Amino acid sequence: MPNQLQPVSLTVTMPTIMAYADLTDDYNPIHVDREFAERTEMKGIIAHGTMSLNLIWQSLRKTLGTPAMAGARLDIRFVRPVRENDIVTGGGAERADTPGTYDVWVRNQKDEPVITGTATVAP
Amino acid sequence: MPNQLQPVSLTVTMPTIMAYADLTDDYNPIHVDREFAERTEMKGIIAHGTMSLNLIWQSLRKTLGTPAMAGARLDIRFVRPVRENDIVTGGGAERADTPGTYDVWVRNQKDEPVITGTATVAP
Repeated sequence: MPNQLQPVSLTVTMPTIMAYADLTDDYNPIHVDREFAERTEMKGIIAHGTMSLNLIWQSLRKTLGTPAMAGARLDIRFVRPVRENDIVTGGGAERADTPGTYDVWVRNQKDEPVITGTATVAP
Repeated sequence: MPNQLQPVSLTVTMPTIMAYADLTDDYNPIHVDREFAERTEMKGIIAHGTMSLNLIWQSLRKTLGTPAMAGARLDIRFVRPVRENDIVTGGGAERADTPGTYDVWVRNQKDEPVITGTATVAP
């Protein structure tokens, strides 16, 4: 049976987005200026893409441990934006036919995919 | 001539690592406990892998703009740890033969690769 990754969730609040902006020095108004963001096609604040990507990393690390992450390969696609107040969860499962390769994903509270892809770690 | 991505650099200080631990709720002692980290094979503190990955994302976003990042694909490999006080730089260049595909990288102050891979963005 495939090895399931331990899921990791995050509620994307405005304070989290602001902390992320500070840390990454990314103050793009689509992330931090609600009035601006509401006038764009996105019609509201969206979170930094790498905030969701971190959930996959955390899920892999919590399940497999830090040493397994050395040399890890990630092949992922950003398929849907994450909005303010979304609850996003990262997780995955090992492929039965390819040990060490995991289908990984981040999904929102509607179970819609946000990021999909694969991770390959040291055996 | 290929389109160069604007490089983005970060000096990995202990306060940056601690802020990153707070944000990602990742307090693995290899990241935050110097005494512990010095007794491991790594012989010192290493930064969270996704801290470096963010530099690639920032480099893409600064050069291409946020809309180009919707649907982006990243295929990257973590090839070397980042240590406390390393200065890491993310950047890349568009492939002449494949518009929209960028060779991306993060390198340390010794010009050693930390992350290598490709990013594919909307044309």
